[in-house]
Parts: sequence; C-alpha cells; structure tokens
Amino acid sequence: MSGSGPIFLPKGFTFSAIAAGMKSSKKPDLALIVAESGATAASLFTKNRIVAAPVEVGRASLAKTKGRVRAVIVNSGNANCATGPSGLRACKLICAELALLLNAKPSEVFPSSTGIIGVSFPAAKITSSLKPLLAGAGASVEHLRQFADAILTTDTRSKLASVPLRSGSAAITGVAKGSGMIHPQLATMLVYLLTDVIATPAELRNSLRKTCDQSFNVISIDGDTSTNDTVLLLASGRSRLGLRNVRKEFDKALLEVCQSLSEQIVADGEGAQHVIHVQIEQAKNQAEALQVARTISHSLLVKTAWAGADPNWGRILAAVGRSGVAVEPGKISVFIGSQAVCRGAAACKFDEQRAHADLSKPECSITVRLGRGKSSLKFLTTDLTQEYVKINADYST
Amino acid sequence: MSGSGPIFLPKGFTFSAIAAGMKSSKKPDLALIVAESGATAASLFTKNRIVAAPVEVGRASLAKTKGRVRAVIVNSGNANCATGPSGLRACKLICAELALLLNAKPSEVFPSSTGIIGVSFPAAKITSSLKPLLAGAGASVEHLRQFADAILTTDTRSKLASVPLRSGSAAITGVAKGSGMIHPQLATMLVYLLTDVIATPAELRNSLRKTCDQSFNVISIDGDTSTNDTVLLLASGRSRLGLRNVRKEFDKALLEVCQSLSEQIVADGEGAQHVIHVQIEQAKNQAEALQVARTISHSLLVKTAWAGADPNWGRILAAVGRSGVAVEPGKISVFIGSQAVCRGAAACKFDEQRAHADLSKPECSITVRLGRGKSSLKFLTTDLTQEYVKINADYST
Repeated sequence: MSGSGPIFLPKGFTFSAIAAGMKSSKKPDLALIVAESGATAASLFTKNRIVAAPVEVGRASLAKTKGRVRAVIVNSGNANCATGPSGLRACKLICAELALLLNAKPSEVFPSSTGIIGVSFPAAKITSSLKPLLAGAGASVEHLRQFADAILTTDTRSKLASVPLRSGSAAITGVAKGSGMIHPQLATMLVYLLTDVIATPAELRNSLRKTCDQSFNVISIDGDTSTNDTVLLLASGRSRLGLRNVRKEFDKALLEVCQSLSEQIVADGEGAQHVIHVQIEQAKNQAEALQVARTISHSLLVKTAWAGADPNWGRILAAVGRSGVAVEPGKISVFIGSQAVCRGAAACKFDEQRAHADLSKPECSITVRLGRGKSSLKFLTTDLTQEYVKINADYST
Repeated sequence: MSGSGPIFLPKGFTFSAIAAGMKSSKKPDLALIVAESGATAASLFTKNRIVAAPVEVGRASLAKTKGRVRAVIVNSGNANCATGPSGLRACKLICAELALLLNAKPSEVFPSSTGIIGVSFPAAKITSSLKPLLAGAGASVEHLRQFADAILTTDTRSKLASVPLRSGSAAITGVAKGSGMIHPQLATMLVYLLTDVIATPAELRNSLRKTCDQSFNVISIDGDTSTNDTVLLLASGRSRLGLRNVRKEFDKALLEVCQSLSEQIVADGEGAQHVIHVQIEQAKNQAEALQVARTISHSLLVKTAWAGADPNWGRILAAVGRSGVAVEPGKISVFIGSQAVCRGAAACKFDEQRAHADLSKPECSITVRLGRGKSSLKFLTTDLTQEYVKINADYST
C-alpha cells in the first residue's frame, strides 16, 4: 500500500517524463500521462481565490468535456500563477499542441503546474519538448516512477501508493507531490489517481469527495494553501469491473491510496523531523474537531516544541483555548502517546522522560479530549524546524 | 515617546522589584505597583478560553471593587496557568497577604503572572518576599525601570513609553512585556498603563477599548494568543486634570503610549530580525482588512521569505487569496516599500535589488491594495527566523 509497496498498474495509461529546462537543476520537470482510449474524470481544486492558469484551464476543460480526459501534462519549476493573460495563453497553447499530437481536443488535455509563483512562464521550453516526451511514453512501473519524480519540487522523495481491486483484476494507483504550502483547504498539492474500473464522472466525483475529507483535507504542514492544488481521479474503464458493482471495495481502496499519499506528503514536509498524529476526541461534531486540530497544528509554539521533543502540553492547551470552539477548561485532557499529561486543564503526574522519548520518535501521537460529545478526528501534521525556515528563507533570485 | 525617550511619572504610584526565586536565572521576578491612595481601573483580558489563575482572580476582583485598585503584583517565571485549584488558591493567598500589609481589601490587589504554563506555582517564594518587596518601593524612574525589568521573560529589553498631558501637569506612562505568544485577540501581553488624571472606571474603559483596537489588537509575532494577557489602565487622580476635560488629548496620548509599546513588543519579537508594517488599503471594512493582514502576518511562507529579505510577493498574494475575503485577483496590487511588484495579481516590472534592499532594513513596509473599498489598516508583525525556532524548540526541562 505505501510508497515502498508493490505497484499495481491500472490498464489504459502510459507515462513519460523529460527535462524541458524549467528547473535550473536540469532535472526532469515535464511529465505526461496518456489515457490511450480516454478516461472519465473527477477533480478537486484549491479553495484559494488566487488560482494558477492551469487550474483555471483544467476546471474549464473538465466542464466542457463533462469529465473526459485524454492526457495530463504537468510541469514543475514554475507554477504559472500570477502570470496574467500571457500565462493563460501559454497554458492553452500547450494543451492545444499536445492535443494535436494526440489527435484529441484541446479540452481533453488536463494541465498542471507547480513551482514558483509570479515568474513569467516559458511555454516554448515545453512545446518544443512535447514530441520527445510523447515518444518516450510507456506503461511500465519504471515509466510511472519517472512521472512521479518529474513532478517534484522541494520534495525529497516521490510519492506513490497502489491497491489492487478484486485480487488484481483492476487497481487504483496514486501519484502525488507536495512538501510545502500544504494546508487542507480542499486538496493541497498535485495528486493523480488512476484506475481502470468502468465509471461515470459522477460516480468518480462522489467517491473522490468523500475520500478527500478523510485524507488530503486532514493534513497540514505549514498552513499555507497553494494556488495550484489539484486532485485528479481518472478511470480508463479498461478492466471488466464496474465501479457501481464494487463501490465499497473501491471506496476503501481509494481511501487507502489517498491516506498513504497524505502520510507520505506530511512525512516529506519541508524540514520535518517528526510526523505528529493529532487525535481529537469527544468533540461535538467533525467541524469543531477539525477547527481544534488545525489550531493546534498551525501553532508556531506547539510546532516548535515538537521540534525539540518538548512535552510542553501547556502550549497545546493554550492553542485549544484560542481555537474558537467554546471549550470548558475543566473537561479537557491531553495525552502524549498513551500517557495523560493534563486532565481538567491542570497538570497531572506523568513520566516526563517517557513523554520526551515518545516525542523523539519519527511518528508520535497527541490526543486531546474535549468532553463535549462523541465526534473524533485524526489529523496529520509535522513539527517546525530551523531547517523549514532555512529552506523557505533562502533568497534564491 | 518611545522606549528611549524621557519618562514622565504620574503622581500617586510607587514601584518595586525583587528576586523571589521564581526564575532559575535568579534575576528579579517579582514586581509591584502601589497606588498609595488607590486608583480607578479599567482592564482588558485575553480571549483565550483557557485563562491563568491571576486572570480569573483579577477579573473577579475588578468586578467586586467596581474598578478600584490599590496594588498590582506581578511575577515572571511561572504563568500560574493550568495549575488547577491549588494555583487559584495560591493566587488568592498572595493577594490577601499583600492586602494585609497594605491595609487594603484582597480584591484591591490585582495579580498577574507570566512564564511557563502548567508548572506547579510556588506561592511561598512570593509570600515570603512581600515584605522586602514593599520596603523597597519608591516613586523614581529608577524604581519604575526595576519594575519593567522584573516582569520580562524571553524579552531582551524592557518596554516603556510616556507622554505628558497639558505640558506636564499630568502624564500617561506605560510598561509592557511580551515577545512570544503574541497575537491580537484582544490584549496579548502584560501591559500596565498609569496616569494621574481624575477618571471614573467607565471613562477609563471607554478610552482603553478604543485605543487597544489601534495598537495591541493590530500586532502579531507568532499568532499564538496567551492565556495570561492583561492590559490594565490605572488612574490615581492625583493631578488636577479631569479626564472628561481633556478627553481628546488623553486619548491621543494613550494611543501614542500604546502604539509605542506595541512597536517595542514586535521589535523584540522572539528571534525577529525585521519589523514589517503590513498596510492593507482599499478594503471594504476594518474587519476584512484585519483578516487579510492577519493571514499575511501568520503565513509561515511569507514570514520565512521576509527572514531572507526575499521579495517573493507570490507568497503574499497566495495568502491574500486564502484569507477568506472574497477578493478579486484582477484588482489586487502588492507593494514592497514604495515599489509596486504586482498589479492585477500579475507580476509587474520592478527593481528586484531595491526590493531586496528594502526588505533587508530593520523596518520595512508591505502594502496590499484590495480594490474593494475605502478602508485601510496598519498591522505590525515580524519575520520568522531560525532563531525563533531555536528559542522555542529548546527542551528546557
């Protein structure tokens, strides 16, 4: 299931990647998925009011085709955001040229970009690379891995997850990138989910929305919502399985893939040393559980304490108190690992060395019980390290 | 007016400080203000649902006395927060013992604490220091400075501001502490404002509320709202000036003192290298201007770019886009210093070296025009440096 597990390739897709010169590192930065006979599609985009050109184009294209996709073209190294009318024209031009090569409609080519915002978009580097890119396409796991590598930016590793359906007669495989500007305001990174079940766009949309609420919408690295976030689910229909006949298994597998990708994204968070599982219990409802989880996960004081493996639960309590949820201090308990460190908003005796040791592990859990109801939520986040600041403070231009 | 300017002492107050052993550094950590003949009072407290014992006690006392204060007792080194019933008892005991020494009512003693949350509160260290503390009280500027030093925690310098009224026939003088857990959800630190005008608690309250909205409520260092935040305004009435007769001058002077203290707090922000003036223009109203200013000021990506003096305005634009305000991208402009760097949510040509140089100064301004209305707001914040993480990640226990 995880990044290191086996990959099950859904039928009907080929992959390719190439260095088009968008990244100064000269690494591969242009990536392609082709659905030879087309695919049905569902998507979710960023909720940021400022959106990149490819988000605008992709959204319009899916509306126009009513959820049909022939190819996905992704570049890293430049977000094509805040690039004005010329950025929009560039994005449309790339889709049109690729469509021509594929004998498809421009609206059947779905574009994504990731990288720096506000830098003029060098479209010619991409259009001149389309032919060799297409020529290199193949359906092997190796080709898929090349795609996964080429979409990375500050990520340190590629992110893949795969689950077979009905003992391998179909599959769901996901590829993602993201390690900064990660905050759940819908999807918060680039994610491509591929399957070969037979499904209508409406069926895919239904499954995708439910799944995202339990995966990409409950993670955060730095609380910043990107302008380019996209989750795209494509179904080639090339297996013999109809989604409607295996809905339960499909949804479970899709959730597994999305949760694995979410975990991989958080674990690769910029400068992150620790992945923190924030478990909110006894909330009145999911909305308030999410509000508390986000306030804790975005608190600089909490995140820096985690970086030092410091069992300073007072900062967690203070974050709960300012979350906007009408908590009653006397009903709140906080746990580090399995150990209660605070009950009724007051210290309780605990083994501080053990708490420090728990927080020193690569993964640790924090549980907060609110004493208000029966709703629980799992949220995934990271600590905030000096390395994060270093990565993001470097003046690169 | 500023920290380095002359201090005008309002009549009717004496000050003292002592090392009571709350801080492991053995530095002074217990501080006292006595209003010999009493003072009228107005206060504002944190909006955090988790509040420290002294906030609970102070709020109840002011209600009981209808705004009368004889003395203020402040300790640093322990926040007396999340310390349960014993913390509350300890706080009341300290007020009662000091009241006895002053021949006052316990409710006329106003307590504050600042320091670590959730650590048992060693009340005996304080009660045994009250007599020598009281014995050392005096009305000189030197005594005031000792008070200002003793209330500090991670602050690197004391914070004072003073403005004379009617050519010195009365004065307003403020003392503050705070350099982390600073976020405007009302007052967000300990601030004591002293004046010798003649005023009722209601008159003071009226002036204080207006003033805070333009000073302590428009600053942020790390977005964390403390559990102990307190702003206390005391009027000894020992001058011949009635507040109602000089309201305009009083309010202007109070605002000047509060803005100076706000600036001093931000400039002393944990690890801060740069003070950033975030100016929001053309908002529909103050509320949305504040929302945009806060989203920018709390964005880790924006704050870390500032640490690197990186004119990466795309991150600012992305923060505006996710602020929750229904901005129209085409109407947004961003300025670094006096230079436009983005118009209509698209890059415009600018001198990047100059922008980098502007951002490298100790103080810099960022202006965002929303194109939605006529409301403007000035917000004060800091960059986020590796030093901030270091200060807050150190596992000290």
